Amino acid sequence: MKAAPLTDLDRLCIHTITTKPWDLPTAAAKFSAAGVKGITVWRDTLEGRDIAESGRMLRDHDLSIVSLCRGGFFPGATAAERQKAIDDNRKAIAEAHALGAPLVVLVCGAVPGQPLSESRKQIADGIAAVLDDCATTGVKLGIEPLHPMYADSRSAVNTLGQANDMCAQLDSPYVGVAADVYHLWWDPALETEIARCGELDKLFAFHVCDWRSPTIDFLNDRGLMGEGCIDIRQIRAWVEATGYRGFNEVEVFSTRLWAMDQDEYLAKIIQAYRDHV
Amino acid sequence: MKAAPLTDLDRLCIHTITTKPWDLPTAAAKFSAAGVKGITVWRDTLEGRDIAESGRMLRDHDLSIVSLCRGGFFPGATAAERQKAIDDNRKAIAEAHALGAPLVVLVCGAVPGQPLSESRKQIADGIAAVLDDCATTGVKLGIEPLHPMYADSRSAVNTLGQANDMCAQLDSPYVGVAADVYHLWWDPALETEIARCGELDKLFAFHVCDWRSPTIDFLNDRGLMGEGCIDIRQIRAWVEATGYRGFNEVEVFSTRLWAMDQDEYLAKIIQAYRDHV
Repeated sequence: MKAAPLTDLDRLCIHTITTKPWDLPTAAAKFSAAGVKGITVWRDTLEGRDIAESGRMLRDHDLSIVSLCRGGFFPGATAAERQKAIDDNRKAIAEAHALGAPLVVLVCGAVPGQPLSESRKQIADGIAAVLDDCATTGVKLGIEPLHPMYADSRSAVNTLGQANDMCAQLDSPYVGVAADVYHLWWDPALETEIARCGELDKLFAFHVCDWRSPTIDFLNDRGLMGEGCIDIRQIRAWVEATGYRGFNEVEVFSTRLWAMDQDEYLAKIIQAYRDHV
Repeated sequence: MKAAPLTDLDRLCIHTITTKPWDLPTAAAKFSAAGVKGITVWRDTLEGRDIAESGRMLRDHDLSIVSLCRGGFFPGATAAERQKAIDDNRKAIAEAHALGAPLVVLVCGAVPGQPLSESRKQIADGIAAVLDDCATTGVKLGIEPLHPMYADSRSAVNTLGQANDMCAQLDSPYVGVAADVYHLWWDPALETEIARCGELDKLFAFHVCDWRSPTIDFLNDRGLMGEGCIDIRQIRAWVEATGYRGFNEVEVFSTRLWAMDQDEYLAKIIQAYRDHV
């Protein structure tokens, strides 16, 4: 059974990268005026800004700060590279804390040519190395399994099953999963692994967009919901069957949509949310 | 433990699509002169030719005809489309029989927006519908699980585990698997599923190439072995641990490599086979 249409915007969150041409104050003002309730902040939008003040500005717009994107990229060919990644993740956790974001989303990383099993070990080690910072600040981490087409250089965690396994292995209240339909929709084990993620109490975030046919760019040709082949309402039904009632986060990277008038695009996002999420 | 380097070309097969600029007689003459022992024939190279005579020509060059590429694309939105696909697969089986190819490789198909579970059912039904033709001719079918990035429109069978399941379900001596490192290398279950494929006695073919970082085109940017991040010798070791002693088939789609002088490219293929397969 598919999920029923969403009749309000109470659980609509938009990632700042989705409307990339807007800086943070513009995105905050526009989202808020349109009735959007949540925002996930990408770190590039914080450059040159006071982070605590940015957090206050977002809350003044009645926006929930859902997460900070992104940490991760733990694997490295040398110990120095891996330490640099750990330091950057500690910085991300501190930024999330200053901003008032409860979650840092992790794109876990991979090194081309390094065995995936080794990268997975380095990911688990890297996450373990920053858990004290999570405990101190209360900020959680969301492992985002990435589509297998990114296994060479972006993430050696490519299925929800692997992310669940890693959560079980790390066994920390601060480590869970950010599930994105773009990365996971094809997986024959998806329904089962969403249920398992729920049983583990690890479903920390849910991202939506769509897969266009054909897709013409590996990174920046995602579709707005309804423009592609993903059965988002089926997946949302599985997600909500776990008890998840968090935000539905719209995360779209699209050269095509970034080129649009962003006010018109925001209206399209909201319509697509009502019609297809 | 990784596989030891191959010291001869006895198990080297090249797909005609790899050296796409060459027609079939040219490919046959060049492969044979270079000491290549096997050829997999793509159907486009047979257009306008007498197929039985083409088979004799290949055997006269001392080439083993390893397989015919390709059948499949069984899913369709209408019964008429699905019947058309079945008819085309019957034609492919007849062509393989006329050519003297023991195997037809299947790119199973998918319809954008149709549930993957429905496409998988249509694939199994489509294969079942042509099994009498296999029994009559002795031609086998190799289900090729395709990378998840092709789940929208090319194949709803995206892991070796799914292909194994489908073989077990169909339970026919004529149905097995064509395993391609390009599609499967990222899968955490790969070693286990290769072993299972062997136990089922279903490993009918093994294809090699490489995954470039970055990859810039969804179809035609494969790497020659050694140009990417796939640990081919590790995967070959798993394949050979099942008892597989068939051909290692070089299947590369590459706009970049098709633009090379194809004689120089053939020399590079053979060197890459010795150095990286």
